[in-house]
Amino acid sequence: MVKLDFEKTGGLLPAIVIDHESREVLMLAYMNQAAWENTLKTGKATFYSRSRDKLWIKGETSGHTQLVREVRIDCDRDTILLKVEQTGGAACHKGYGSCFHTRVENGSEIIDKEKLFNPEEVYQK
Amino acid sequence: MVKLDFEKTGGLLPAIVIDHESREVLMLAYMNQAAWENTLKTGKATFYSRSRDKLWIKGETSGHTQLVREVRIDCDRDTILLKVEQTGGAACHKGYGSCFHTRVENGSEIIDKEKLFNPEEVYQK
Repeated sequence: MVKLDFEKTGGLLPAIVIDHESREVLMLAYMNQAAWENTLKTGKATFYSRSRDKLWIKGETSGHTQLVREVRIDCDRDTILLKVEQTGGAACHKGYGSCFHTRVENGSEIIDKEKLFNPEEVYQK
Repeated sequence: MVKLDFEKTGGLLPAIVIDHESREVLMLAYMNQAAWENTLKTGKATFYSRSRDKLWIKGETSGHTQLVREVRIDCDRDTILLKVEQTGGAACHKGYGSCFHTRVENGSEIIDKEKLFNPEEVYQK
């Protein structure tokens, strides 16, 4: 098992997720040791949800799983980079392809991407 | 000034840096409020160095500054994405174009990128 520096930041490391073909940055989430191991073992992006305080297999609710095509680590062993195949084409829980659908320009926020799904239909309460 | 959720994680938010043309992920560093404001004001990527405990204008020692071409934020307002023009073509302090020069595959680590500069010549003690 490749060792990462989980101690540095209290057990959680940031994981950048990009589309393996387009290279678009889809999202950033956090992994603990268990999420890291599960990602490598299953090939499905697995994170640690800080808000829900538990392991989170991306897409387990929405069906929008992320199939891991390549795993990279940075020179300090404290950041992970996943290249994934995004099932359904949308990574963001708000319905966008990427969580980074907002551009900042001259002090303003501009949403310059289109929604791909309606979150209310996907995440039924 | 566009407000970000700096409180969530004790004042520091992760900032992903990618090349504005190739879309290669170059590095991840952290920003506090002052780094965020300085980045927007100057157009040069500015971070907060956790190891040196101070503001860090990327490239101030190496000359490898990052000229910001686009700033994006994520849906939770707790991650920043910078699209930059990387002066000198190398973002990593170890001499590589990207800090993510290491691929993880079947439990092994494979460096599959070439060094672009010799760190010992650039960071003279």
